[in-house]
Parts: sequence; structure tokens; C-alpha cells
Amino acid sequence: MADAPLVGIIMGSKSDLPAMEACTKQLDEFGVPYELVIASAHRNPAKVHEWASTAADRGIKVIIAAAGKAAHLGGVVAAYTPLPIVGVPMKTSDLGGMDSLLSMVQMPSGVPVACVAIGGAKNAAIYATQILGATTPEWRQVIVDFKRSMAEA
Amino acid sequence: MADAPLVGIIMGSKSDLPAMEACTKQLDEFGVPYELVIASAHRNPAKVHEWASTAADRGIKVIIAAAGKAAHLGGVVAAYTPLPIVGVPMKTSDLGGMDSLLSMVQMPSGVPVACVAIGGAKNAAIYATQILGATTPEWRQVIVDFKRSMAEA
Amino acid sequence: MADAPLVGIIMGSKSDLPAMEACTKQLDEFGVPYELVIASAHRNPAKVHEWASTAADRGIKVIIAAAGKAAHLGGVVAAYTPLPIVGVPMKTSDLGGMDSLLSMVQMPSGVPVACVAIGGAKNAAIYATQILGATTPEWRQVIVDFKRSMAEA
Amino acid sequence: MADAPLVGIIMGSKSDLPAMEACTKQLDEFGVPYELVIASAHRNPAKVHEWASTAADRGIKVIIAAAGKAAHLGGVVAAYTPLPIVGVPMKTSDLGGMDSLLSMVQMPSGVPVACVAIGGAKNAAIYATQILGATTPEWRQVIVDFKRSMAEA
Amino acid sequence: MADAPLVGIIMGSKSDLPAMEACTKQLDEFGVPYELVIASAHRNPAKVHEWASTAADRGIKVIIAAAGKAAHLGGVVAAYTPLPIVGVPMKTSDLGGMDSLLSMVQMPSGVPVACVAIGGAKNAAIYATQILGATTPEWRQVIVDFKRSMAEA
Amino acid sequence: MADAPLVGIIMGSKSDLPAMEACTKQLDEFGVPYELVIASAHRNPAKVHEWASTAADRGIKVIIAAAGKAAHLGGVVAAYTPLPIVGVPMKTSDLGGMDSLLSMVQMPSGVPVACVAIGGAKNAAIYATQILGATTPEWRQVIVDFKRSMAEA
Amino acid sequence: MADAPLVGIIMGSKSDLPAMEACTKQLDEFGVPYELVIASAHRNPAKVHEWASTAADRGIKVIIAAAGKAAHLGGVVAAYTPLPIVGVPMKTSDLGGMDSLLSMVQMPSGVPVACVAIGGAKNAAIYATQILGATTPEWRQVIVDFKRSMAEA
Amino acid sequence: MADAPLVGIIMGSKSDLPAMEACTKQLDEFGVPYELVIASAHRNPAKVHEWASTAADRGIKVIIAAAGKAAHLGGVVAAYTPLPIVGVPMKTSDLGGMDSLLSMVQMPSGVPVACVAIGGAKNAAIYATQILGATTPEWRQVIVDFKRSMAEA
Repeated sequence: MADAPLVGIIMGSKSDLPAMEACTKQLDEFGVPYELVIASAHRNPAKVHEWASTAADRGIKVIIAAAGKAAHLGGVVAAYTPLPIVGVPMKTSDLGGMDSLLSMVQMPSGVPVACVAIGGAKNAAIYATQILGATTPEWRQVIVDFKRSMAEA
Repeated sequence: MADAPLVGIIMGSKSDLPAMEACTKQLDEFGVPYELVIASAHRNPAKVHEWASTAADRGIKVIIAAAGKAAHLGGVVAAYTPLPIVGVPMKTSDLGGMDSLLSMVQMPSGVPVACVAIGGAKNAAIYATQILGATTPEWRQVIVDFKRSMAEA
Repeated sequence: MADAPLVGIIMGSKSDLPAMEACTKQLDEFGVPYELVIASAHRNPAKVHEWASTAADRGIKVIIAAAGKAAHLGGVVAAYTPLPIVGVPMKTSDLGGMDSLLSMVQMPSGVPVACVAIGGAKNAAIYATQILGATTPEWRQVIVDFKRSMAEA
Repeated sequence: MADAPLVGIIMGSKSDLPAMEACTKQLDEFGVPYELVIASAHRNPAKVHEWASTAADRGIKVIIAAAGKAAHLGGVVAAYTPLPIVGVPMKTSDLGGMDSLLSMVQMPSGVPVACVAIGGAKNAAIYATQILGATTPEWRQVIVDFKRSMAEA
Repeated sequence: MADAPLVGIIMGSKSDLPAMEACTKQLDEFGVPYELVIASAHRNPAKVHEWASTAADRGIKVIIAAAGKAAHLGGVVAAYTPLPIVGVPMKTSDLGGMDSLLSMVQMPSGVPVACVAIGGAKNAAIYATQILGATTPEWRQVIVDFKRSMAEA
Repeated sequence: MADAPLVGIIMGSKSDLPAMEACTKQLDEFGVPYELVIASAHRNPAKVHEWASTAADRGIKVIIAAAGKAAHLGGVVAAYTPLPIVGVPMKTSDLGGMDSLLSMVQMPSGVPVACVAIGGAKNAAIYATQILGATTPEWRQVIVDFKRSMAEA
Repeated sequence: MADAPLVGIIMGSKSDLPAMEACTKQLDEFGVPYELVIASAHRNPAKVHEWASTAADRGIKVIIAAAGKAAHLGGVVAAYTPLPIVGVPMKTSDLGGMDSLLSMVQMPSGVPVACVAIGGAKNAAIYATQILGATTPEWRQVIVDFKRSMAEA
Repeated sequence: MADAPLVGIIMGSKSDLPAMEACTKQLDEFGVPYELVIASAHRNPAKVHEWASTAADRGIKVIIAAAGKAAHLGGVVAAYTPLPIVGVPMKTSDLGGMDSLLSMVQMPSGVPVACVAIGGAKNAAIYATQILGATTPEWRQVIVDFKRSMAEA
């Protein structure tokens, strides 16, 4: 069923929403159904735990986690699910997002989070769709078309 | 057919092989078939172009690109394929791999490369398998089992 | 009862043990009873959750969390306990521990982890004892004596 | 007596006051009595020395030190008191606060300062209260309630 | 023939144009004929490949490549041409251009890109003219005159 | 006359010689005649001034300047000659060469130094030869052959 | 004679003047006579050479050099004079002044430049006066008075 | 009297002695009398306070302060004396000395510490002698001779 969400987007704070609009907009353009939740790994760990643990059973295939500063959200979600996590390190006002990036990308052995660029909300959407397209021809076609239109632009 | 490679591993230099052994070893343990090629985006662009352009048609589902310093390999491969690219920034002797990391992860809008940690060869294998498992139950089960065995260790 | 642990030490990996010996040795010299557990926030989140959630009820007053790279352990423990967390960012072979430091110290609003220096295992023991001594005269005296002996050394 | 200050806040410059308002506001909300002093470790060392040396005797249990750039204030205070110091590295206009952070957190062996995030004024208040709550049930309850309300928010 | 372009300027995005105006303005002042193309190494690799492969045959002597973030453009062009590449790392909003700089300058052995400063558009024009002047007296004279006028300014 | 030096190599200290051997070896392989001088911009400014001011008149076409730490040598030479300067930032034992790189590459407007990678001695030789080949067919052919042999290796 | 300049201030660009006003203002308040020159080490090396070489003979006792980016000015002046150089690294718009700082402070063995903070114009004036006061009682008294008034402020 | 110390060297830890030998050796060669004390600003603040406060009265003209990590020593000494302080940031095993450098050089307005390079022990000796030579012809001559011998070496 096309409407069941395939991508789960989680972000640590309501304040990340404007920066993540480029992500949801791109998923909308691709026609990828998604669900979005705002939950902090630190302020509301039970909610994150519950959401991450049940994501796969609810049909989610890929998770996009956006967080800033000591950005643990991606790693915490990764601990509770076998799904691939796409990390989006948020830009920060003091260190430019270097803190978010290192906190996300430098995951220890066994539990990867794969990161896109600092503030790379749109690229996270593209990457999540590439993951869907890895083994699903329809979604791969979406990416093929997208790349062609970029080249022509 | 189990033996056809599902993961394509490309690295920029023969000198990256020892650091990437943890990647092939993990894929072997998971039973994920892969192919491995050594080709520099700068010294042998035609080979990279050819390999990347045909990877999807040869049945590859995910690409792992490992490179160091001005690590363009992931981005160059990404330009020629709709497949998801998992970047492995190699540790460098002068800047510790910060150069490799930024050169891989800070991809511009439209063409993501998702990075694991500096030197994260084993995690790249796990992540590639997670991508396979996003929509393929058998591979997801491999990850579920792996995570259980880690928790028990 | 003097033997019930007052400080809980948690570290993400067995490989952190040698670097943390300076911590346990200092607590031993101070006579501060402690318990020590090795559990990864990512590989074994349930164990961390259980340990952190029950620490206060078991009589632990302060927690020392040591971890490296994307060092989420302190933040994850902080999410499950009202106790103060002293973070020890482990030195890393590629970025020197800058990744561990930023991943620990840059905690978002509401859930602090207070960090000592990269590799500051001994200082974490001193700081934990200072916390005990904040409101307990016997432990404060231990610190007063320690500072006097340092000045005389 | 509830009105005697339990937390001492010291900052290096009047210009740090606006950034530290989130700290005093949080302590006010928690009902933690505090005193606040502005004194530079470099421009007015005698005042800092006097204040730090007598803090414990005046009933202060925890000290919050906020400073920027070559932020020595926390370390200088730590040299004169057995109380635990919570460092708040101020954001700086040129290096984003990386200078303040390293100047505070990288304290040498024997004299720790535990740091919260760059600009982490509110978290310093929470952490100071956690220290009070380490061995005082009433203050711990304040933190337990605070964490519950955060999770519900 | 004076009008055939001697310098080829390539930039990864239309958004780099304003920052690169100082480059074209300086070439205009020097009377150095140039051509300018906007093409992303990642979004339009075929165009970059075609342009770079034919530059030398079209009479181009030096290439200026401007790009930001994971700035692969210079390296990708360098892979396809024997001409010297002058890289201009673009300033970025999060990391200040450190990402662009390292992605350009840290080229692996065999395929150099020589970089000017972050945002060094004018200097790229001067350097390209210095390259022309290395073996061509007229262009060297242009540089000699330029340096004299700077000293007199 | 083939033996008159076309490339001038200057380095700040005798200790840079081993790292720069890859440069002279590559020029030897290319058959590019060069001269080499060791002179510090700070300890022996008169010698640097003299050497740089007369380089063009002695037939030098390109200058390679190698220096470490506060690496002013390239900029100082650039001030005295219209020739293009290829900077080689030396790796340093404390900051990995980041100091050398920024000291060389961040040249102010008007006087560029174009840098290759930290420790990029071999690439400096290749780049200098590319500069010679910009307008001289024989030297360009050397580069074309070199690139072909790399691709075949 | 009180009016002969004791401090020589040199800066690389007219654009450094506003940031250096805090320096001249402080010298004025101290009554320290100074001369000020704007000359770029790269664009006008002869002027810098002349000025630096004759400074000591003209009665200058200390030199303050302010420059940004690849800030060679302090080192270049140091090469031509036995006088102590106080470096002021200018804040830069992309790297915050980290480039200026490293370019100034990391001077190689034999030719020191001692740096104050990024943008530390006022402190440069104070330090220059401290140098004068090292062996001259009147100038030392100026510093003693200044420190007392700071403590009282 | 030639034997009364003119330079006071203070270092935070006995472990800094080997790195500072280049400083005392250079002062010995220059014939500059010095005294050397080891005292930590944090572990033994009273000793530092006493030493710094009396340095000027004992005839010391310049102070060299060497410290690592959160290197407050220079600033703490500066708070208690009108003498100029030359800071030597010690190399550190995790961050290469960047922490020491920023902790020393980024001094706030009013109380400068002027820093030489990371590990710049020899340069600190030269600089201290340059300060002596600012107003004392004999010491200036020592520097003039030293610079001449360097140029001839």
C-alpha cells in the first residue's frame, strides 16, 4: 500500500523542523511516504525507544535522524532497530555543526550511522530513496529520473 | 543467485586494502557476496567511470567507496550510478582523516554520499547489509542476528 | 554502609579499561566505594538502560561515564537517571579525542553531562568525590586533604 | 535555612551576564538559592581568590564558573576550593567558543573543572542541582520532577 | 589570436558566480581571454568530462576550478586534462570553507590541484596569468606591471 | 639549453630535504632541470630576497617553495618575483601541517601562492611541469605520458 | 625626548585600521609615543624591509605587527630587526582568525613573534608598554597603575 | 650584578622540563641570568602567587611561562605582576598543543600573555632577550650577533 510510510524521520527538537523541510519536500516530490516524529534521545528516551523499536514492524524501511550538538539521536535509534539510519548533522551556532557531525559519524564498531553533509536535509531524502531503490526497481527509477533531470537542468 | 555480487567495494589505492580488510571480513561473515576493485578517481577516471556506470546493471545494489585525503572517489562514483554509496573516509597521517571525512561527507545538494566513521571499514559492511535488509527479509535477519549476538557478547 | 558503591563507573568498551585505571585507583586511594560496568550504549542499550535506571535506587550518588568517538554513553545514561554524570572523553587514534569531547560535552538543553579533560580518568575520580563532598563533610575532608598533599608535593 | 546560597555563580565579565541569565532563571525555577559575583581571574585576582577561598565556609556547595576565550576562571577558582566547579565555556565571536571550551575542560591532573556545553548556562544550573541532589533527597526530587516534565512536554 | 580563450573557468554552481566575479574582473583588466562554464562534477559529470577533456585542444592553457563543500570539481577536471588546475575553495556557511579547502588541496599523489585561499577569486586570476607568464614574456610583463602598481598604491 | 634550470626549489630548512626528495626525483624523471636552495625567510632574508629577485632573470620559470609551521617562505618569495609559486606545506609534529597549510594558502589579495597538499612534494614537481607545459608542447607531452602511464599502472 | 616614537605599529592593510584603533587609543592613554605605518609584506616588501631595518635606529623599542589570513608581516619584520615583535592576528571572515593566529605564532626556531589574542589590539598596546616597562621604571609604573585601576573597576 | 636573574622561568609541571631545556640552554648561551621554578597554578596556587607577586621586586624583568593543556599558568602569573609574560604552549599528546595554545594566547582584554609557537622553548629565550634588549644596548647587541650568526650558518 503506497500510503504506509516507508521512511521514518525523527528529529531531536522542534527547532530542527525548518531545516528539515527540504527533506520532507523532496520525499513528497519523489512520492515516498514517510512519517515524522519529534523526540529527543535525552529528554524523552522512552518515546525514542518505543518509536525506534517498532519502526521495522510498522513497515518503515529507512530512518532519517536529524540532530545537533552532541547529536546522539541517530546512534540511539540505531541501537534499537536493524534498519539503516541516515544521519543529518544540524548546523550549530557556535561550532558550525562540526560537533553534530562528529557526534553522528564517528559511531563505534558494530552500530553504524551513515551521515550526509551538515544540514544535508535534501540529500538525506535522496539517499533514503536510493536505499529503497537498492532492491526495488520503482524507487530506483525515481532516482534515475531525478539524476537525469539534474543533469539537464 | 547467491554468488552474484550485491555489494561493490571500490578503493582509491592499493594502500587502502589493509584498512578495508575488516569490511570484506564482515561481509564474508554475513555471507554477502561482493566484488572489489581498486581504481583512483584521479589517476584512472575512465576505469572508475566504467565500473560505476555499469554497477547497477551487473546486479550491484550498494557501493562502498573508501578513499583518503581529498577523497573524491565516493562522489565521483555517485555521479555515475543511482545506487546508494557508503563512504569510508581513510585515516590520514597528517590530519587524522579530517580531510577525508569532509571531502566525502560534505557532498553538495543532489548527490549524497553517506559516510561512516573515519576508518569505519567494518561498519561500512554492516551498513551495506542494512541497506540490503531494508527491503529484503533474509538480509534483515542477518542484521537482527548480528545485533543480538553483539548484545550478548 | 561504607561498602555500598557510591560511584557507578560505566564505560563503552573493554578497551577503555586501561585508560580508566587511573580513575579506579584514585577512588581506591580516597576510599570511595564504586561499582564498574562495561556496556555499550549502542551494542547493548538494554543493559545500559537497566543499569542507569536503577543506579539511584541502588544507592549510587554519581556516575562516571567513559566513552570514545561518537561518545553517546554519558548522554544515554543521563537520559535515564537524575544523578549527575561525569563524562570522560576517551582519546581517539585519528582525531585525538576531539570527537569524543564534542560528543560528550555539547549536550542539548535539559540533560547535561559535565566533562573532564580528554583521557581525564583521574580527574573524574576527584570530581566524583568532590560531588560527594558537596554536602557530605567526610568526603569533603578527603578532597581538602588531597589538595593539601598536592600543594606540598 | 533555605535562603543561604547553595550555589555560587562567578563570571569573568559583565558581558557574560545576558548569556548566563538562563542559568539564574533555571535556579530560580528550581528554588535553589545562589549568589552571583562578577570577577575576572586576570583583572581582579585578589577578589577571585577571596571569594573562592571562602565559598565553602559560607555554605556554598557547588560553584558555576562562566568565562570566555582563555577561560581560566574555573581553574583558578578550583585551585582555592574543595567544592566541585561546573564550567560554562562562553561562545566567542572568532573561534565560536572552542577556545573557551579547551581552556576550561582540558584541566591538568589533580584539579578538575567539569564543563557543560559552550553557552550551556541552563544546563549548568541543572547540573549544579543534580550535584545538590546527589546526596540530598529534596534536590534530587526537583530533578526527577524536572525530567518528568521535560518528557511530557 | 588574442580572442581565443587562454583560461578556462569552471564552477560547480551558479551560486558561485558572485564570489567569482573578482576573478573574471581581474582577467578582464589583464586582458586575458577566458571562457566560463558552470557544471557540477556530481550533477552533470558528462558535461564536466567533455569540457575538461577538450580544453587543451581548444587552446586553453590554464584551468580555474571553483567549488565549495566536498569540492571535487578541481580533482575531477584534473583527471581529464594535462593542464594545470588552480583551485578556488569557496567559503561555506557552516565550516567557513575548511571543507572546501581540504577537499581541493589534499589531492593524492599524481594528480595535483594547486589552491589559492578560501574565496581567493582574484588571486586565482593573477595566478593563472602568472602561469601564462611563466614562458610567455607578454603575460609576464602584465604581472610585473601589476606588482609595480600594487607597490605604488 | 636543456641544462639551465627551469624550476627553482627553495626550502626553509635542511630538515625539509628528505620530505622534498620525492619532488627532485620526479623532476629528474621528467627531465626538468632545476636548482635547489635552502634559505630561511626569517633567518636569512637577504639570501631569499636575492635569490627570488633574480630567479626570473636566470631563466627560472616556476618556483617551488617548501616550508613548515608559520610557512612564510612562499609568500616572501612571491613578493619579489612575477613567477608562479607552488607552495608545499610541510607536515608538522604538533598540528599535522594545518599551520603550514594555512600559512601558505591563505595569501591576501594580490600575491597568490598556490598550494599542493601537506607534504605534497611529488605533486609539486608534477604541477611545476604542468605549468611549463601550459604553453610549451614538449613539457605538456611529458605530462600526457605521465598521466597515461598512471592510468595503466 | 618623550615625543620620539617608542613603539612602531605596522599593519598589512588599511582595512586593519578600525580593529587596531583600540591599540592606538590605549597607547595614547598610556602616553606612549608611537608611529604607525600601513605596508603589506607581500604587496610592498621593499617598504616593509626599509621600515623594519631602520626601526631600531630611529629609536623604536618594540614593534606591533597586525595582519590577517596568511599573516606573514610579523615574521617578515622580525627577519629585519632585533626588536621584539608583538603579533596581532586579525579575525578573518572565513576561519575566524585561526589562519592568522597560526601564521603568526608558529614561527620557526630562531625568529620569534610573540602573539596576543586574535583581534587583541588593546592587549598589544599593553604588552608593548610592559616591554618598555621591563627595564624602564616610568613605564612599569604606568602598567602598575593600569592594573590597579582595572582591579578597582 | 650580572648574576642576579633577569628572566624568571616558571613551568607547570616537572614533565615540562625536558621540552624547556632548549630555553635554558639558549639563555645560557646568551649569558642571560635566569631563575627557574616549577609550580602549578592549580595544584599550588599559593606558590605561584608568591613567586609572581615578588618577581619584579627581585629584579626579574621578563617571565617565561610554560604550560600545557588548559594552560592557565601564564595568565595566572600575569594577574600578579606588571612584567611581560612570554607564554610557551606545551605540545599535548591528544590535541597536539592546540589546547595549550588557545588557553594561553586568547587572553581577555587587559591582561596579555604573548605566546611563541607550540613547544617554542628556544624562541621564548630569544624573545625574552629581545625584551631585555628593547631598552638595554648590551642585550640588543646579543640579539644582533645572534641574528648575524644565523644568517651566516
